[in-house]
Amino acid sequence: MTLAIVLFGHGSRDPAWRRPMDEVARRIRAQDPALAVECAFLELQAPDFPAAVDALVTRGVSRIRVLPMFLGVGRHAREDLPHLVRAAEARHPGVVLDVTPSIGELDEVLDLLATLATRQP
Amino acid sequence: MTLAIVLFGHGSRDPAWRRPMDEVARRIRAQDPALAVECAFLELQAPDFPAAVDALVTRGVSRIRVLPMFLGVGRHAREDLPHLVRAAEARHPGVVLDVTPSIGELDEVLDLLATLATRQP
Repeated sequence: MTLAIVLFGHGSRDPAWRRPMDEVARRIRAQDPALAVECAFLELQAPDFPAAVDALVTRGVSRIRVLPMFLGVGRHAREDLPHLVRAAEARHPGVVLDVTPSIGELDEVLDLLATLATRQP
Repeated sequence: MTLAIVLFGHGSRDPAWRRPMDEVARRIRAQDPALAVECAFLELQAPDFPAAVDALVTRGVSRIRVLPMFLGVGRHAREDLPHLVRAAEARHPGVVLDVTPSIGELDEVLDLLATLATRQP
């Protein structure tokens, strides 16, 4: 079972917007060069979620972990993404997708942000 | 010089969206109960940035550190926020505002996200 990671973010008209997501992907690849990692976007940037998943499955991936790159917990993480995941599972029987909590729900992220906010510049 | 922290985020129609920001504010207050910490929003949620700053200045704050809670680096962090900061400085001569990089530009945040993405569930 070949695992891949999809970093799923909102997307923006601004091409520079995705830079932090690309940088997280780069660091994951540096940690584990064998791991397939893709960014995918809800709107305005490519690839969208279906295209990213389909490309990974074509490369032989059978398990995909999705990290929602949303700091706020809103409709995109709670509604749009589950819908996209169900559609991907329907297109690819036998491929397992699991979705982690959004980054704004991860205890370690909240702790780090609180620490960085009060760090002396 | 009394320091305050403003966590500045986008805002959403969804009331639950701000929960992670409120949680970061809570953790900062837990670390340092004497520190004034406020969330402020670009749109759709209250208080907005001017209201948050004005309230802090009324409470005697003379230095405000702003942490832009944007993962993507786009127009909100690069254009909207600097405009709001300049307007606040014009309203409050003698009050110093400094803006940290957006959370998506902080090396520690990117490293943590890469680590969490590959952590075994």
